Amino acid sequence: MQIGRPGTPVSHISQAYPDRVEVRGRDLTGDLMGRLSFTEYFHLLLTGREPTEDQRFFLDLLLVAIAEHGMMPTNVAARMTLAADPASLQGAVAAGVLGAGPVILGTSGECARLLASGRGAAEIARDFRTAGRRIPGFGHPVHKPLDPRAERILELADAHGVSGEHVRLARELRDAVAPLTMNVSLPIAAVLLDLGFPVAAADAVPILARTAGLLAHLAEESENPIGLRLAAAAEEAVEYRPPS
Amino acid sequence: MQIGRPGTPVSHISQAYPDRVEVRGRDLTGDLMGRLSFTEYFHLLLTGREPTEDQRFFLDLLLVAIAEHGMMPTNVAARMTLAADPASLQGAVAAGVLGAGPVILGTSGECARLLASGRGAAEIARDFRTAGRRIPGFGHPVHKPLDPRAERILELADAHGVSGEHVRLARELRDAVAPLTMNVSLPIAAVLLDLGFPVAAADAVPILARTAGLLAHLAEESENPIGLRLAAAAEEAVEYRPPS
Amino acid sequence: MQIGRPGTPVSHISQAYPDRVEVRGRDLTGDLMGRLSFTEYFHLLLTGREPTEDQRFFLDLLLVAIAEHGMMPTNVAARMTLAADPASLQGAVAAGVLGAGPVILGTSGECARLLASGRGAAEIARDFRTAGRRIPGFGHPVHKPLDPRAERILELADAHGVSGEHVRLARELRDAVAPLTMNVSLPIAAVLLDLGFPVAAADAVPILARTAGLLAHLAEESENPIGLRLAAAAEEAVEYRPPS
Amino acid sequence: MQIGRPGTPVSHISQAYPDRVEVRGRDLTGDLMGRLSFTEYFHLLLTGREPTEDQRFFLDLLLVAIAEHGMMPTNVAARMTLAADPASLQGAVAAGVLGAGPVILGTSGECARLLASGRGAAEIARDFRTAGRRIPGFGHPVHKPLDPRAERILELADAHGVSGEHVRLARELRDAVAPLTMNVSLPIAAVLLDLGFPVAAADAVPILARTAGLLAHLAEESENPIGLRLAAAAEEAVEYRPPS
Repeated sequence: MQIGRPGTPVSHISQAYPDRVEVRGRDLTGDLMGRLSFTEYFHLLLTGREPTEDQRFFLDLLLVAIAEHGMMPTNVAARMTLAADPASLQGAVAAGVLGAGPVILGTSGECARLLASGRGAAEIARDFRTAGRRIPGFGHPVHKPLDPRAERILELADAHGVSGEHVRLARELRDAVAPLTMNVSLPIAAVLLDLGFPVAAADAVPILARTAGLLAHLAEESENPIGLRLAAAAEEAVEYRPPS
Repeated sequence: MQIGRPGTPVSHISQAYPDRVEVRGRDLTGDLMGRLSFTEYFHLLLTGREPTEDQRFFLDLLLVAIAEHGMMPTNVAARMTLAADPASLQGAVAAGVLGAGPVILGTSGECARLLASGRGAAEIARDFRTAGRRIPGFGHPVHKPLDPRAERILELADAHGVSGEHVRLARELRDAVAPLTMNVSLPIAAVLLDLGFPVAAADAVPILARTAGLLAHLAEESENPIGLRLAAAAEEAVEYRPPS
Repeated sequence: MQIGRPGTPVSHISQAYPDRVEVRGRDLTGDLMGRLSFTEYFHLLLTGREPTEDQRFFLDLLLVAIAEHGMMPTNVAARMTLAADPASLQGAVAAGVLGAGPVILGTSGECARLLASGRGAAEIARDFRTAGRRIPGFGHPVHKPLDPRAERILELADAHGVSGEHVRLARELRDAVAPLTMNVSLPIAAVLLDLGFPVAAADAVPILARTAGLLAHLAEESENPIGLRLAAAAEEAVEYRPPS
Repeated sequence: MQIGRPGTPVSHISQAYPDRVEVRGRDLTGDLMGRLSFTEYFHLLLTGREPTEDQRFFLDLLLVAIAEHGMMPTNVAARMTLAADPASLQGAVAAGVLGAGPVILGTSGECARLLASGRGAAEIARDFRTAGRRIPGFGHPVHKPLDPRAERILELADAHGVSGEHVRLARELRDAVAPLTMNVSLPIAAVLLDLGFPVAAADAVPILARTAGLLAHLAEESENPIGLRLAAAAEEAVEYRPPS
């Protein structure tokens, strides 16, 4: 059964042969292993090209910026899931990744689409105000009045001379919706676009980053299991009320 | 409801405060962002320590070695899932991660437990032969007679002078079960242990690595959707046979 | 960290006590077990009320209608995932459920929102035509010119006298967009709404139904493992083409 | 790439044709829809046969027995995941299903393998005592000294005359390990086996049942979002302690 219009049955990423693995046209063992860092390799995998020094620096920076942020809902869900099946690390990681939706940390992609939409800050702010919707990239439950990660990203973008039209638009947008806190998602999107990354990178970066945080929490969980204690605390916060 | 004996309700990983984020006792924005690479940060998250230069080099190497390996079942499952819900990148990644089980790429952890078990190569080989089970880290459907990634890892471990007792045991095990192909999972485990990583790292590394590959396939899938074509090819390979 | 405006910390579904379990105000062991069928219980869980005879009949009917439909992409993904980790049935089910997105079988909910939107058939058809989007509930890759499940549902709805304004709107919509095949999702939504179900039921019913199909495929897979054969067929359908 | 020894590329479950759907050799729309209840259809899907009246009665009973049990960890994880991405019901269900591992509710399958192992109660109890492991099917965090669901299942099995050798073994096992609480998983397994179900049914039944409970919680969550409140309560239960 073929549903919908299919793409061309071609992939440009990689192929395994009996005696070698080719990735993006390069030899994995002879050329890439030991030469590229994981971040450089992620860039190659995602875009087909090796990064420039600026692209490498900021890809590392952005991955570090959002990999970990305390006992986030994603970490709680993953730890509870590992507690329920200690033998399935991949199941626990999957449960955590599923929580990386738009509300929690998935807004970088939306921010990128916004910044790439061709509209100005005033127009964007007005469109969202008219629609009664929250602008992606603004507001944070903990960081007030500033998100220190957002500020640091912009500072380093300026220092490295990579701030361009998308960083400028991000700042104009901040002024247009002040005093809302600009959170980390908007600078991530802005810097990626100014460095020439595709919009898809702004969707992918938070997920790879957060997977690293999840794996750290799950390694800790396997040493010191608190997942069911987390679940018990959650349960106790809710009252059962039968129909009257 | 508390099920089982709980651990201490403490986590040593990170905490977000209104004006800063602390990770493993360090300040995220002031100290870590822009200084550590993503690989170094993953090491800090996972173990609580920054890596030595050897640890950094081999962590990058091993992540690169197994991030991508062609149109693997995990990539197929992820692409089919994105095709079914193009708006949920995290759902597609989760579906792919779920396929990172012991059969496909989850044997590094098993290999590490084997190499850390205190038994010698002859004893391990005999135990598995007696039990009629496959030894983890051996056999590969594509790479024959050698897995080029496995060979390259050992070569670089020797060149960097990090090969120790676990790499030696891995080689003894290879001799004991020849001519089976030693696959990439065994050297990953051996090198991690020789570099002082905990066994848990051998479970975590393949999952982080493969997430990078999944994200590349999903970015390509969103540009050129072939997920349902993959599903159709799979369906056509199976015949429905009603009860007679 | 509290993100967004929270609801009241109350749940009306169930509570376990040392000597009994209360569900929707009823005693699970003394009242429900052995009296209600699983379908009746699902109705009670979802809506807080036991179903009328018509609600019970059609809930069974609709669950049966969409539980299984051949070697669907969801079944392929689940079987491949079980092949990768035969010990994690729940992981394989989760991978399959993740594929139950809007493109494959998640359109009943969209159909319900459409039918409950207060617009007439001509207006709906015009709105979608103007927007250049596909109307949910129409088109099917296999069933042409009619989806036999859709026809049967409407036939039984008429025969049982439960067809109301939403079934009428579904038929008007079919006339408005002819000759597109009306697929099973639209009658599911229409009948549920005419029977007084909330819109949420049209989201939930396909997922419960498809879980039954997934479990059947996974039981067969554990007896006769073909998951990796499915993956191999999918892989062979795609050509790797390196950058030129 | 074909990994491992493949099964025969045949499935006996179903096939869709342009004008009909065949399931287990039967016509879906002409024969099954409107005739079989969802439970009867699940039996047909899983085993290839329609159930006897006893099989139908107890399959309904067992599904009802374990579909819902308060704000379980699986429900907490699912609600948190929906809160993070309200548009992906299937993602939230998947996150909940992933928590249905051996520790929380996946022991029915283990119990069935135990009861079908051919060993007597004394031997089983001794084997587990020697190995220092917990016997599946015993112990419950809430229900003490009796699990009312377990008692009710055995009571109804006796009343309907379906208790056979597996129910007898379950009771002998209870005596052998007294005063541990026999939980609901053991009678589920025993009754399924005495009714002629395959062991795989004891794995599948809890997952289908719990999916119904998850869908009820997620429908409630979409009306009254408390998922992030649950996550906040969990987070507050844990103290961050940096390295000293």
